[in-house]
Formats: sequence, C-alpha cells, structure tokens
Amino acid sequence: MSELRFDELRGEQVDYAIHRQDRTFLPPRDHCPLCPTPAGAVGTAAETEIPFPAFEIAVFENRFPAFEAPLGAAEVVVYTDDHDASLGTLAPARAEELMWVWRQRYQQLGARADVDYVYIFENRGVEVGVTLHHPHGQIYGYPFLPPVPTLELAADQRLGGCAPCRLMQGELEDGRRLVHQNDAVVVYVPFAARWAYEAHVVMRQHRRSLLECDARELRALAGALQALQRGYDALFARPFPYVMALHQEPTDGAARGGHLHVEFYPPLRTAEKLKYLAGSEQGAGAFISDTLPEQSAAALRDAIARAA
Amino acid sequence: MSELRFDELRGEQVDYAIHRQDRTFLPPRDHCPLCPTPAGAVGTAAETEIPFPAFEIAVFENRFPAFEAPLGAAEVVVYTDDHDASLGTLAPARAEELMWVWRQRYQQLGARADVDYVYIFENRGVEVGVTLHHPHGQIYGYPFLPPVPTLELAADQRLGGCAPCRLMQGELEDGRRLVHQNDAVVVYVPFAARWAYEAHVVMRQHRRSLLECDARELRALAGALQALQRGYDALFARPFPYVMALHQEPTDGAARGGHLHVEFYPPLRTAEKLKYLAGSEQGAGAFISDTLPEQSAAALRDAIARAA
Repeated sequence: MSELRFDELRGEQVDYAIHRQDRTFLPPRDHCPLCPTPAGAVGTAAETEIPFPAFEIAVFENRFPAFEAPLGAAEVVVYTDDHDASLGTLAPARAEELMWVWRQRYQQLGARADVDYVYIFENRGVEVGVTLHHPHGQIYGYPFLPPVPTLELAADQRLGGCAPCRLMQGELEDGRRLVHQNDAVVVYVPFAARWAYEAHVVMRQHRRSLLECDARELRALAGALQALQRGYDALFARPFPYVMALHQEPTDGAARGGHLHVEFYPPLRTAEKLKYLAGSEQGAGAFISDTLPEQSAAALRDAIARAA
Repeated sequence: MSELRFDELRGEQVDYAIHRQDRTFLPPRDHCPLCPTPAGAVGTAAETEIPFPAFEIAVFENRFPAFEAPLGAAEVVVYTDDHDASLGTLAPARAEELMWVWRQRYQQLGARADVDYVYIFENRGVEVGVTLHHPHGQIYGYPFLPPVPTLELAADQRLGGCAPCRLMQGELEDGRRLVHQNDAVVVYVPFAARWAYEAHVVMRQHRRSLLECDARELRALAGALQALQRGYDALFARPFPYVMALHQEPTDGAARGGHLHVEFYPPLRTAEKLKYLAGSEQGAGAFISDTLPEQSAAALRDAIARAA
C-alpha cells in the first residue's frame, strides 16, 4: 500500500501512502472515531475504532497508515476516552501510565526487524494539520533511519560525546532559557530554537530511550510534559498548537546512541500569528525566527508557573 | 539587527531577525507598499517603497531584512507595477527581463565577501505566509552555505557527477513525470517529490548559475517558468500557492558546483486540502505524501497544455 522512494538530490527517503488521501477529516464531535463505542453499539454503524464503552489508554494500528508491516508501522495512541481532555489535563496517574504505554510500544516495535526507528509524536491543533481533535498521539515505526535522528547522531560524533547531555549542561549553566525542571527532567527553550516557543524536555541522566528510565524518571517525565503543556495553553489563554516529537535511540540494531528527549515545535509566534515554513526553510533549509529564545523562555517560564 | 546561532543538535544555522515581528501584514489594496507612488505623492504619506509613478521591475533592500550587510543581504524583487499580475501573466519580454535582473543580482550579491549563497525565491499565497499580494519575489544573500544546497553538493559527490544532470537524464528517459520542455529547459515532477505537485525546472545543459546562461537560455527559462505557473493556476482554476526556489552555484569562493534549477513546492494536495509539515516532517525529517508523482504529473501536464 505504501511505497518508499529515495530522493537522490537531498539524500532522503520519501514515503508515498496513497490511500491516506481519503482519511477522516475533522468529523463532527458525535462521529469521533476515537471516542468509546456507546454501550450496545458494537457491530453497528455507531461502533468507533475502540469497541468498548470506556477505556483508559488505547493503542491500535492506524486505519490510514503511512507505514505498514512488513515495511514499518503506524499506530494511534488515544490518551483517554474524554474527548475534551489533553495531555496537560490528564490525571497525573494517567499521564504516567502513558509513559509506560510509550515504553512498551517502543520495545515491541523496536524489536521488529523492519523497524529502524520508533518515533512517538503528537500533532496538536488544526494549525499543524490535525484531522481528529480527540486527544491522541501517533507512533511511526520507520523502516529506515530518518534525517533528523541521523543529524543528532552526527552531532554526537562532532561533539565527541552525547550532544543532548552537553547542550543540557550548557542550558543549566546559562539558566536564561530554562523554563521548568524536576529531579529527573530539564525543560528549556534551546539556544538556537527554530520556533518562537520551541521547548526541549530532556532527561537529566543519560538515558538512550524510555527502556532505560526507571519508574521515578517516567513519572517525572510525565509531570514535566504536563507542566509544559499547561504552560503553553496558559501562554495565550488558548489551546496551543504544536508538534511533539520523542527522540530516542534507533532500533536498527546498530545501537549508535541517542538521549531521550521530547521536542515541541509550536507554530504560533504571537497569539494570532503563525510561523510559516516558506522560501528560506523549504528551499534552503535555513530557519528564520523573529523571536529571541531568551524572551520566549521568560514568557513561557511565567506561563508554566501560572498554570502550575 | 539580526543574529546567527548554530544549532549543535541539527548542525544548522538559525537566523534571528527580531525586528521582523512588526513587518507589514496583508495591507489593504490601496496601501500596497509595492505599488507605484501616485504622481506628485513622493515625499507624502502616500509614497510607497517605489517612488515612481510607473516601473517595469524594481529591486530594493527589504525594509524588514532577515539578513543585512555586512552579514548577508535581503532584497525584494517586484515583477511589475500591476498589482494583479503574476509571474505567469507577465508579458514574455518582461519575464525574460526578470531573468536578467536575477542574473545581475546573483552576480552583484555573489561578489560580496559576506554572501556565501545567493538564493532567489518567491512565496506565493497566504498558504505559505505571504504578507503582500503584489507580485514579487525575494533574494537572500546567506552569510553561510545553507543545508539544502549542502545536501545537493553532497549528492554530486555521492553520484560521482552532477546530480541534476543525471536526474534530468533519468526523467527524460522515463518520461512519465515530464510536464513541459523546450530547447533549453526540462520541467518534471521529480521521482521522489515531497509535495503532490512539486516541479523542477532544470536547464538542459550543465549551467552552474544564471551567469553561464546565454540570452536564448534565459528566454527559454522565463518561458518554462511562465508555462508552469499558468498550468498551476489552471490545475484547480484558482491562484496556486507555492514556494519557488532557485538553486545555483554557491558564491563562497569555493566553486564547488551546482546546476541551475528552479524547484516549486506547492502546499495544495487537492483543490481544497493542504499538506502540512507536521510530526514526521518536522520531528523526523521524513516526508509523507499521499499522491504519486506519476499521477500528479499527468494532471499538471494536461493543465499546462490547457493554459498554453
């Protein structure tokens, strides 16, 4: 169903998933495919993707997959059966449980020979093309090592050690861009942020993946992600769109490193204005930002404190 | 005014142009800063960026520059004084003249020690963040070699010769993705297109930049760009948004190759639906497309023929 082609000019794989042209697009609320199936409606037209009247967290294969076995995977992770919740408003125990679900999927998908990189992510908001509002994320099991993790591994080589370890240490020493931290996790707007309110959520200790984190660290990670997301929503007093991206060790068997961290790319540069990826970003690959990371970090730090 | 920071994690420069936060945003038609200044209004509040009652093509420094001397350049190129024209509807002689203007700016900016890469581009349509509708393009003189040209030079190394020469030859032999050609220029949807209606306009002969093109080739390039743009507008019978990107030889003095070609990235995947750069593209760098290049090439080829 899907087809990979190698772009010789940029040296990157492009994936064609033709059947996705017809995927469900912003259905009305009472037709949400990620809501629970009403009691007694299993087997009827009212059955959703989740054939239970209630659930905590649900994971299933994407009905419109970008990748399919035996050439990768595409899964949906529904955070809750509450249509109006979000990562930030989940009960802390549920958010912690989500970390264990991610961990289990990383392990299961990563063990597959056709999955070279397990990528857990969330698109939030119509501004980043979301087609279903029910709180959920996705997991891609790429059958190749994608460009961004490749660049991060190259950074380890260039710096002669773990790049996220070194960059986090620099942020802790500088301090101006820190927005939140706890025992196990540090959150900051990076020195060279591409997006006005970009934030990186980084494990304090060198953990290549969720598999290396203990229960205390997973709880701390959930707490930091929730604090950040509530801060984002408080920043402009509106649901804050973003792409959330987990970067971990590749699962291609070469075990070349990696340091678990979560990157957030929010497209808003003010309450109303979006950052577009246009000429410079698309055609040259060079990001232009009109916001200094120190300024947005100060605003985000205040918003996280307000929302705590 | 602007500041460059090196992102160690991705190995890329990020540019901060803080003053751009306040740039002119979709002004009403009678306040267009790229229209001519009415006769007698020079020196009054009605004076635009162009203090003449009529003009053919105008080039000036961007008032809200991403780059400024002595650390690069940012210029605006206004194609015509007709607010409602577009690249495709310019008189052929004017479009040809535009190629000579681009050529002159490439030469002038490229000769500067602080400009390593001259990047001529156009953002068209609010879908790619356009803030002024008057037909115009831009030129950035990057004070560094940006990521995408760097990848293209790496492709030359990997393929052991000019990558665009080889890829164009492959497209000519295959034929299924060709959409237009003339004596000097070949236009196709590339084999591994990222965007549904992406097209590459490639010089048939190996020309590293506009400087190596003769008058006949520049005329042919203008004609191909106009034919493509009219075809785009005919495709869904609406002004077709895109990013247009000229790739040429770097001007950093190292003269490492390059092959003049123009890439178009249109965000529409159907008449109404946009392609968003979301989780996979932003966080992993892997493009997912739901349209096969052979299918979109057939539709675009027909549209170009209809609009001829």
